[in-house]
Parts: sequence; structure tokens; C-alpha cells
Amino acid sequence: MAGTDKTKPMVAGIGPVVVLVEPQLGENIGMAARAMFDCGLTELRLVRPRDGWPSEAAASAAAGADSVIAGATLFDSAADAVADLALVFATTARDRDMTKRFVTPRQGAAEVRAFAATGGRAGVLFGKEAKGLKNDDLALADACIVAPLNPAFRSLNLAQAVFVVGYEWFMAAADAPASELRIPKETRPANKAELLGLFEHLERELDASGFLRVKEKQPVMVRNLRNMLQRAGLTEQEVRTLRGVITSLVSGFGRGRKKP
Amino acid sequence: MAGTDKTKPMVAGIGPVVVLVEPQLGENIGMAARAMFDCGLTELRLVRPRDGWPSEAAASAAAGADSVIAGATLFDSAADAVADLALVFATTARDRDMTKRFVTPRQGAAEVRAFAATGGRAGVLFGKEAKGLKNDDLALADACIVAPLNPAFRSLNLAQAVFVVGYEWFMAAADAPASELRIPKETRPANKAELLGLFEHLERELDASGFLRVKEKQPVMVRNLRNMLQRAGLTEQEVRTLRGVITSLVSGFGRGRKKP
Repeated sequence: MAGTDKTKPMVAGIGPVVVLVEPQLGENIGMAARAMFDCGLTELRLVRPRDGWPSEAAASAAAGADSVIAGATLFDSAADAVADLALVFATTARDRDMTKRFVTPRQGAAEVRAFAATGGRAGVLFGKEAKGLKNDDLALADACIVAPLNPAFRSLNLAQAVFVVGYEWFMAAADAPASELRIPKETRPANKAELLGLFEHLERELDASGFLRVKEKQPVMVRNLRNMLQRAGLTEQEVRTLRGVITSLVSGFGRGRKKP
Repeated sequence: MAGTDKTKPMVAGIGPVVVLVEPQLGENIGMAARAMFDCGLTELRLVRPRDGWPSEAAASAAAGADSVIAGATLFDSAADAVADLALVFATTARDRDMTKRFVTPRQGAAEVRAFAATGGRAGVLFGKEAKGLKNDDLALADACIVAPLNPAFRSLNLAQAVFVVGYEWFMAAADAPASELRIPKETRPANKAELLGLFEHLERELDASGFLRVKEKQPVMVRNLRNMLQRAGLTEQEVRTLRGVITSLVSGFGRGRKKP
């Protein structure tokens, strides 16, 4: 699904800082950076990465998210890494024996957005690949983020966990339309007069061919046909194509016919 | 973030079928299966996997989602793989030069949920790693899913693309549908095999009538016609009506003709 367009601007809004606590493999740091950049997150902080830093494995796995890797900063402890942040979430996949507010990634994203609007900076802590965060790290956080996935199989890898948080943050921008019909530049949506022209053309030909001969059924049949064609959201060009289709079908001379 | 609890039940609801079209690396198929299972999706279909099937690389990368891998089925074409489905989405990262409805993963998930409530089965097509789906595969779909991510860097890998779709499907469980198509009780959504029957009927007649005589334009013309009819969300009954329309138009005898 490659669709990069470097001419388009980055997403607006200051995203949460991503803090990886004691990540093990450089490759996973790189994939996390790529997931961040996909979602428009740019600030990465690393607490004691096991295999050292900088990391060639990380740079290679980042697959283009070079600026995230290049800008990553190092810290000795999770506490240092979140010192300048005012709202911190900790990610976890399992219940912990502590009293803590738990939110979904979606709810967490909404809180980060609301918080940013007041000028506050937020961050999200992610633990090491195998074991997650320590309880002491969780104690740094205002709330825990837990993704409510299949309880019988919950094995998000690090990059996916980062991605879920980033994705929800991106989606919370609310400028993403839920559904839109995209049409080529050279055409435009058909207007109702054009649609009516198509409907009447079709109905005239169907009447002539005997399809609408049962008069009582005619209004229902016409309505059904108009409804189904209307649902297609036709362009002006498509209306012309369909009129061509009708003309072509009608102008034939039965099976095996050919154009003169 | 490992937090598997096998004592808890699987998520409720029938999720969309995941169709991977010409996936290249077995490892990517395995990671896609793992992403599916994370989100409670279980039915995987493969169209001509490049490195053959079964695949040890896939089984190993699935990391516990064995049942998804074991239950995967093989198909010769994307059309075959979606024949029994009534609502099909195609994933894409870039704009295509065709008139098509585009939805976010969230909107797509809501539509799948609403659709399942009417008894219809849905599926999502994913293209090969590097290039995505072909335009002909897109023409099989009712709408395109595109994740509205950072436009300056949109490089979701296959497993992440599957994960976004599955995650939103999982999250949609509690949400009311944003829009729904209501259909009469006595009918049901047409499945892809029925639609294909309609398309081929129309194309056969258009070929015979000379409409498709310019061979170079034929593929584009066929794709455009399929796209516009597909967007109408036809019921099985409507497909039969349209086939009647085609037959009736063809069986006429030119202008001013009347049934004997």
C-alpha cells in the first residue's frame, strides 16, 4: 500500500511523544519509527536501548522515516524521559495489580488532542518487546492505554502497539471524511436533469420493447429502476455511457447481429 | 504487549473475509494472519500466493495464529475468491482514475457490521506488497478503503493494512452504523457471482451490438460499466430485473417496434 505524496503537507497538530523503554532489537525501533511517521508522529525518545544507539538495524527498518530516527533522543530512565511532559500514558496488554485509570487508544487519543489544545505536551510509554513496562514505569503515568483486542490472542508487537496509538491520534483530528465518492477530474456528478434524461430514455425503450407492457406494474417497475440507478451516484460521463449502452442494445437486430 | 488469555471467549460477530491477492512473501502472509487473529478475524483466502502454499515461512510468522493459517483457502482469481460475498472492499493507498466510493477503515467497518446484521457476508481485498491491487481487482469491489494517514509518508505494510481493517472492525462492535442500506425482506444483497453474471450478460450483448468494437477501449469500458453498476448495491431481485431489461432491449426490432 505505497502511496507516499511528498508534495502534501504533514498532518497538523502536535502529536504525543513516543517513549520506548528498554527496547531490545534495533529493527523493532525502526519499525516503530515507521509506524509513527505513518501517523504523523515525529518525536521519539529511547530509554536504555539494549543494543546501543545509533543503530543501523533501526535506520534500515525505518524504511524512509529517517527524520524520526535521526531526531531520537536518549534517556537513562523513563522518569527522565517524561520529565517535561504534562500528560503521560503507559501502554499495557495485561491487567496490573494497581489502581489505575484504563482507557482505549481512542479515548487516550481524544485526551491527548484535548490536552494539546490547552498547550500541554503529552507522551506515551511503551515497554520492552517481551515483558512490557515495569510497574514502576506505570506509576509515572496518568492512565494506562490498553487496546481492547481479541482476548484469546493478544500479541501486538511493539510497532503495532505504537501504530494503534498513532493511528487513533491521527483519526482524532476529525478532518477525515467517513466516506467520499472520488471521481476523475475530467467529469463531475450528473445533475438530476441528466439523470431524468437517462431514466426517460430507458423507460421509452423498455416501453417500446414490451418490458413495461403490464400497465399496473409499470409505476413500481419504473420506480425500482430509477432507485437502483440513482444509488450508483453516476457521473455526467457515466450517464452518457449508459445512454450509449441503451442505444447500442436497441439498435441490434437480434442474436448474432452485427453493425452494418 | 503480550497478554493472551485463552480462557476468554473469542470476539462475537462474523468478521469480514480477508483476501490477499498475489501475496509475495510467506512471512507477510503469516504476519497478516497474526494481525487478523489479534482482531478476532479468522477467514483467510489467498489468490495465487507467489511462493506457493502451504508455506513454512507463513506458519512461523503467524506466531500462534495457527488456525487462521490452517484454514486458509486458495483461489485462482480474485473474482473466484469473492464470488460468494455480497459486500467487497478493496484497499488502496493511492488515488485511482476511476469513479469509486472511498471510505475510511472506520466507515468500512461500520458498513461491514451493519451488513452482517442483514445476513450478508463481507470481504476485504488486499493487493501484493509492492504494488497493491490491479484496477481490475478494484472493479470487483463496492468501495475502496483507504487509511487517511500522513500523506507525506504512507507506507503501510501488508500486515499493518490488515490490522487497521481488523482493528476498526473489532472496535465497531459497540458502535451504531453510520449509514445503512435497507432492503425489502423478500430479497437480499446480490452476491458477486450473480453480479458477474449480470456484467457478462451485458458485455456479451454490447459486444454483439458493436458497442465494444474498439478493442483498445474495451477493458476500460468494461471496468467503468462494472464500477457504476457495482456502486448501486444491487439486490438479487434487481440483478434479475436488469437482466430482463437487457434481454428486452436486445429483443426489440429497432425504432417504433412493438411486441407481436
